[in-house]
Amino acid sequence: MGKTSDKKFVEEITSMEVDFAQWYTDVVKKADLTGYTQVKGFMVIKPYGFAIWENLRNELDRRFKETGVENVYLPCLIPEGLLQKEKDHVEGFAPEVAWVTFGGAQELEERMCVRPTSETLFSDFYSKDVHSYRDLPKVYNQWCSVLRWEKTTRPFLRSREFLWQEGHTVHATAEEAQERTEQMLNVYADFAEEFLAIPVVRGRKTDKEKFAGAIATYTIESLMHDGKALQCGTSHNFGDGFAKSFDIQYVDKDNSLKYCHQTSWGMTTRMIGAIIMVHGDNSGLKLPPNVAPVQAMVIPIQMKKEGVLEKAAALKDTLVKAGIRARLDDADKSPGWKFSEQEMRGIPVRLELGPKDIEQGQCVIVRRDTREKITAPLEGIGECVKEVLAQIQKDMFEAAKARTEEMTYTALTKEEFKDLADNKPGFIKAMWCGDVKCENEIKDELGGVTSRCMPFKQEHLADTCIWCGKPAKTMVYWGKAY
Amino acid sequence: MGKTSDKKFVEEITSMEVDFAQWYTDVVKKADLTGYTQVKGFMVIKPYGFAIWENLRNELDRRFKETGVENVYLPCLIPEGLLQKEKDHVEGFAPEVAWVTFGGAQELEERMCVRPTSETLFSDFYSKDVHSYRDLPKVYNQWCSVLRWEKTTRPFLRSREFLWQEGHTVHATAEEAQERTEQMLNVYADFAEEFLAIPVVRGRKTDKEKFAGAIATYTIESLMHDGKALQCGTSHNFGDGFAKSFDIQYVDKDNSLKYCHQTSWGMTTRMIGAIIMVHGDNSGLKLPPNVAPVQAMVIPIQMKKEGVLEKAAALKDTLVKAGIRARLDDADKSPGWKFSEQEMRGIPVRLELGPKDIEQGQCVIVRRDTREKITAPLEGIGECVKEVLAQIQKDMFEAAKARTEEMTYTALTKEEFKDLADNKPGFIKAMWCGDVKCENEIKDELGGVTSRCMPFKQEHLADTCIWCGKPAKTMVYWGKAY
Repeated sequence: MGKTSDKKFVEEITSMEVDFAQWYTDVVKKADLTGYTQVKGFMVIKPYGFAIWENLRNELDRRFKETGVENVYLPCLIPEGLLQKEKDHVEGFAPEVAWVTFGGAQELEERMCVRPTSETLFSDFYSKDVHSYRDLPKVYNQWCSVLRWEKTTRPFLRSREFLWQEGHTVHATAEEAQERTEQMLNVYADFAEEFLAIPVVRGRKTDKEKFAGAIATYTIESLMHDGKALQCGTSHNFGDGFAKSFDIQYVDKDNSLKYCHQTSWGMTTRMIGAIIMVHGDNSGLKLPPNVAPVQAMVIPIQMKKEGVLEKAAALKDTLVKAGIRARLDDADKSPGWKFSEQEMRGIPVRLELGPKDIEQGQCVIVRRDTREKITAPLEGIGECVKEVLAQIQKDMFEAAKARTEEMTYTALTKEEFKDLADNKPGFIKAMWCGDVKCENEIKDELGGVTSRCMPFKQEHLADTCIWCGKPAKTMVYWGKAY
Repeated sequence: MGKTSDKKFVEEITSMEVDFAQWYTDVVKKADLTGYTQVKGFMVIKPYGFAIWENLRNELDRRFKETGVENVYLPCLIPEGLLQKEKDHVEGFAPEVAWVTFGGAQELEERMCVRPTSETLFSDFYSKDVHSYRDLPKVYNQWCSVLRWEKTTRPFLRSREFLWQEGHTVHATAEEAQERTEQMLNVYADFAEEFLAIPVVRGRKTDKEKFAGAIATYTIESLMHDGKALQCGTSHNFGDGFAKSFDIQYVDKDNSLKYCHQTSWGMTTRMIGAIIMVHGDNSGLKLPPNVAPVQAMVIPIQMKKEGVLEKAAALKDTLVKAGIRARLDDADKSPGWKFSEQEMRGIPVRLELGPKDIEQGQCVIVRRDTREKITAPLEGIGECVKEVLAQIQKDMFEAAKARTEEMTYTALTKEEFKDLADNKPGFIKAMWCGDVKCENEIKDELGGVTSRCMPFKQEHLADTCIWCGKPAKTMVYWGKAY
């Protein structure tokens, strides 16, 4: 453990206090989450990164289906004319799409973009598929990749291509659409908190920050280790705007023709970035047990001594049988190296097993989150590790929540607001008049501070807007964001 | 059941004996598998179609992982220079790719195609990721969509975009690559036979029919109801061709630099087309229980009589608890309509439950495949339905196998060969000299008959080639194909 070579593995990571952005890049690389090709601005998601995504996707998909969501697949290309049908929407997306102009050797009559999001396609589809009130609602979702031609990119956080799910629903009434919009936001919030151990603030976006074409956008926002906010998932209510642009009408029970109401909602591979930045530390990744591809790593000590490797393999098998995603690290490397690697990859627990442990019928469980060492009898080890994993899941959420609360400040005066923005990374709660002019000035003068959301849980901090002094309409979470 | 309105549902399907292509289109539409948008040549996979794909994908993915496959995700765009690196490969694909020429408002310096397949990208990635023998093998796979600019399209069978998995592996030795190529072909074959109840012929493609850039292509071929063959999955050995073009080298144990050996293998949404055309009949789809999104439909008879609907709901719950994907059809429609709909959608069994059945503590199970009616006690109904489903799975495979054997002919003379090609849709087994000239002539003169594969199970039918009379090298399965 004390050997220099063992330490190298970790030493290559920049400390997060020194340079958070570099720390992030180092962790992504050393934990083997992404790779690259000649295609600039696009990431390769490697097996370990993709296994995290699979766990995340499967659980979110399961929660979707519990609420009646059905999966579908729509084309990846959108003709320009279709993209342009909804005015606000095309203005939001046209500047950043990739255009297909040739099919084989033939120039296309109308160019098509690779989907940046699929509201227009779903609307076109629904306009053909919905006829009567009996066809409603349709609660469809697709898992796919989308393209946005970003100028600067970072793995998971901002990439020209990313994976996501996009839900698109169509309803008979405005009430039903609003209900579904909020329902899906709550699915995201519960999923983030229960499965990824990421505490979130639930709220509504201001008009300036809402999605192109939506009448209302809801969001969950979380705080990273550096005090910057990350938008984790959004849910939009489109009213009947797209329905009017795309002529999505249905015959109601009373035989009259009515426009439909629509929603959409999405969560992306960005969440892997959130997991890294909410939970990670200077030893690397720290994965909540629920989403960890490997939950327990068995590491034999004095592996070459007779019987050790066999016992370690048997221990791994016992864990697997108990339903734990366990592995055995039997590589020809020192235990110290293996400890570092397990910590770098964020595997929630390691089980150390050496000749003395075997003699005493025990092993040592080391928690990744707290580094606590627990000596546990091999008898009943499966149940024991399951309990420890459940405890880690809970503790990681509590720790992240405590830090988020610690980094959430309240500003009552403009001076306080400025001071916090300059010196205290985190959320700032402050009152707002509702005027976009204040939002714009705040962004310009406070180094990029934006309104993250108008939280559902409102507090009346003051009567007036923190910026202009006019009557306040709402409390806003402000912050710098990814 | 006798009412005209009930029959309409089915009457809209063209009989497969009258027009097989139209029958196929009708079934796809009436079983609600696909839809459409303005995007020509692209399909929308609707919930029922996508649920079939999900079941198929999950099971195939499970089988992959059992053999050590890891999932990854690579970019969806390929720069033209990368596509051109392997000469045979670019010739095969360049004519049918979609080209992206603009990112936002900016014209790209180098145009990129939307991936038609990803050998070049994986090779580029491996050239950066593989250094030492310790890094090998890599057995990666991705589930994604690909684009090929087809001129004529049909849902599932030939579409400008389709979903698939593409496995790409890299190995230290030629032997290992060959082993993996054959292993994955067998995974496909077992999956098709055991899970989709589709009997296949396993074999190797002739040089004329092999994949662009491969040294050997293996295939599984199956026979549709109309006697045309469908290629169901392929597995390619690339030797070190791509490795040399992309400079994928590794340092071996002896410290020398060596080229890697690669494979790739894929299966697509085309398999849904195969399921339809192998199993379907003039009442619609017929799904093997393993892949059916709904395995059992409970249909109440005289639904408005007291207690019937409650009992039917309880029956459905019992089936769900037994692990069966069961649903209750409580729509306000006649039983006859519901029967037709259940048959159209290929749901393996329906359970009819009326007042008399309830009195006698029984229900009537009707098999979709044979239309056999089984009166079964409600006591222990879960186990009973499971047994019936297992029997259907088995019987559907046996029925398809018997038909395939019936439609597989042997030609010993050129005259026989011509006669069979003209009059007997199906496979024709015949000897071949190995010369592409014969293959080309056969295709031209026999209305599009091609070599489907050189089967692993060879038979020595004659000493000479069926076409030119020169010494025969191998037996070939010939046929017209989709």
